[in-house]
Amino acid sequence: MKEERKTMLIVISGPSGVGKGTIFKRLLDNDKSLTFSVSVTTRKPRIGEEDGVDYFFITDAEYQDLLEKDAFLEHATVHDHSYGTLKSQIEEKMALGKNVVLDIDPQGARQVMAKWPDCVSIFLLPPSYQALHDRLYSRKTEPPDVIERRLNNARGEIDSAGLYQYNVVNDDLELACAQATAIIAAEKQRTNRYFPVVE
Amino acid sequence: MKEERKTMLIVISGPSGVGKGTIFKRLLDNDKSLTFSVSVTTRKPRIGEEDGVDYFFITDAEYQDLLEKDAFLEHATVHDHSYGTLKSQIEEKMALGKNVVLDIDPQGARQVMAKWPDCVSIFLLPPSYQALHDRLYSRKTEPPDVIERRLNNARGEIDSAGLYQYNVVNDDLELACAQATAIIAAEKQRTNRYFPVVE
Repeated sequence: MKEERKTMLIVISGPSGVGKGTIFKRLLDNDKSLTFSVSVTTRKPRIGEEDGVDYFFITDAEYQDLLEKDAFLEHATVHDHSYGTLKSQIEEKMALGKNVVLDIDPQGARQVMAKWPDCVSIFLLPPSYQALHDRLYSRKTEPPDVIERRLNNARGEIDSAGLYQYNVVNDDLELACAQATAIIAAEKQRTNRYFPVVE
Repeated sequence: MKEERKTMLIVISGPSGVGKGTIFKRLLDNDKSLTFSVSVTTRKPRIGEEDGVDYFFITDAEYQDLLEKDAFLEHATVHDHSYGTLKSQIEEKMALGKNVVLDIDPQGARQVMAKWPDCVSIFLLPPSYQALHDRLYSRKTEPPDVIERRLNNARGEIDSAGLYQYNVVNDDLELACAQATAIIAAEKQRTNRYFPVVE
């Protein structure tokens, strides 16, 4: 049985606090065909962060240069620091036979979907706004004003859930992981990516 | 958490001997959201067959009438007997909240896909032509000339596998069932059918 497979780019997005990171890690742990992309950033490394592992740390000039070369699949500038996902990195990993998963905020996800229409897009939703509120406050990693801004943003983001191919509600984590896993498993069998050759 | 779901029509096809029936039964046993459609036929009931269970047994005149009314999602006439799948039956079951699965030969599947473009289409492939040959002969239900005709048809059918949305190779039955199950699970999360309402 010969099989040919084209690799894919998978976008996992959702509002802040929905549990993107947790589901993302689970998927990567359980499916060795998946890998992730390391972003570039112009901010300085924090203690313990390693270049090429956590981020590729680059200068503002390098960032500008990449921007001019249209090297980014998505990019954003937040509080004087810029971040971006390099198209070349995705392409390299996919050429090596890996499916690349991006754990990305909705603004970045929109850019990726526009630039890579063939990507598989999954949007995670909270069971309720109250649940999102509780999760963000219980994380205790951000001050209340930042949390409130995230909650405000979440409304518009959730209203745009229909722009993605798939929606998954993260109420029961196991169920949400199973649904995301099924989506990736199904997408591997799509005839635009999978070509079994019967002899 | 409010959720709205639109039901779907799922077409499972593949060459004769590929194991459609086995996988079809497994899917129905394991997912209570699924149901099947009972076909109509103009042939006489065989011993043990029940009207409305195995088939709806109808007269030639009734069949002609349904044909003129464009009542069929797909239909075929084989050896003086006609068979058909009623659109109304699919629609009724879907309106009752069920996802309808059709276990159907490739000719019928092509008709369904043309008439119901929103259906989910899965084509099953054998691991090899030899495997298909061996399975058809080991069933011992048909004479060699019928088997040879089926094997000849299988070539063209398999060449058209790319017309379906998904391909699944039935080499390891468990794996094939898992892949088909994942496809249906994923399709339930598609944003054209699934509308979670976050409050």
